[in-house]
Amino acid sequence: MTDTVTPELDQQVRFLVEVDKLKSVDRRSMLVEQSRNENSAEHSWHVALCAMILAPYASSSVDVDRVIRMLLVHDLVEIDAGDTFAYDAVGRQDQHVREKLASERLFGLLAGEQKDTVMLLWQEFEAVETPESKFANAVDRFMPLLHNYHTSGVSWRQHQVSRAQVMERMSIIREGAPPLWRYVTELLDDAVERGYLLP
Amino acid sequence: MTDTVTPELDQQVRFLVEVDKLKSVDRRSMLVEQSRNENSAEHSWHVALCAMILAPYASSSVDVDRVIRMLLVHDLVEIDAGDTFAYDAVGRQDQHVREKLASERLFGLLAGEQKDTVMLLWQEFEAVETPESKFANAVDRFMPLLHNYHTSGVSWRQHQVSRAQVMERMSIIREGAPPLWRYVTELLDDAVERGYLLP
Repeated sequence: MTDTVTPELDQQVRFLVEVDKLKSVDRRSMLVEQSRNENSAEHSWHVALCAMILAPYASSSVDVDRVIRMLLVHDLVEIDAGDTFAYDAVGRQDQHVREKLASERLFGLLAGEQKDTVMLLWQEFEAVETPESKFANAVDRFMPLLHNYHTSGVSWRQHQVSRAQVMERMSIIREGAPPLWRYVTELLDDAVERGYLLP
Repeated sequence: MTDTVTPELDQQVRFLVEVDKLKSVDRRSMLVEQSRNENSAEHSWHVALCAMILAPYASSSVDVDRVIRMLLVHDLVEIDAGDTFAYDAVGRQDQHVREKLASERLFGLLAGEQKDTVMLLWQEFEAVETPESKFANAVDRFMPLLHNYHTSGVSWRQHQVSRAQVMERMSIIREGAPPLWRYVTELLDDAVERGYLLP
């Protein structure tokens, strides 16, 4: 803007203004009160808070603060690549390519070191190899499960999703947050019984 | 839900489902693309990310991860108390009482120790005494400033806000993130020149 602004601050501000667009990326899950679909920005807040609250169920070695940072950036690529529905087999085929391009444009708005930090956090989340990324992914699956259950399965019913599909999608919870697994299976049993989910 | 769920997990899930309501609390600032007002949940995500990106401008002693946790919970009380507009003198009179009641009901959904942790984070943010809460408050003021500037001051113009009012509101940035202060004053000068803000 002016001569006194450092190039770094200028880049950081551009990045922060650009990522406002995540608030306009719609997800398939609805708000619990069912007034509208949720967007990826408010979802990112919800899962970051979820990681903080459910931290006692992570493996003891997990750095929860790193998990929170990971979740704050995990969906940024959707600004360019859109939200790919978990049960959309076609959309998921080129998801990786679209998201990689997005990561380069978006994180590239930041200067060198910060670009690398954010890129590494996102890549770690995507690779699902470290204890932190396993817990982050577990939380990222657990929260939509609660949303679906507490909206009488509106999104599941709309897309004719089956218990087996959700079980596969949720399997990372068994690894990333083992004490939550029993809760998940019982919630799904109950969801099938109530007709929210295909058996 | 079932016998195998511990009371703690049951409370945590209730809390996580309840706070979904923050996504329906509207703020006065608009999205950068001006399609709608932003809500307090997506704002909480944005400021938490902002703290992460602008961390180099905090005092060296600041624990940025604590700031991020603080920002994830700083607006939860608005679920009951609503968002009080920064320049609404009447609404601000009983804001504290309304928010204190809200904090007791909402954080009280959690079990003992977690309730205390979240309550302390919120109280620390509100008291603006520690370096962490000063930086958190600085970021919480800086982000809406960017929103207002990048929407041609639509909210400022609508509420006839003056440069002096914004300066007073932004003053915590001078303490909480000193290197950003010059950027703020220059942005406000520019906003007045462009007619976004009353002189």
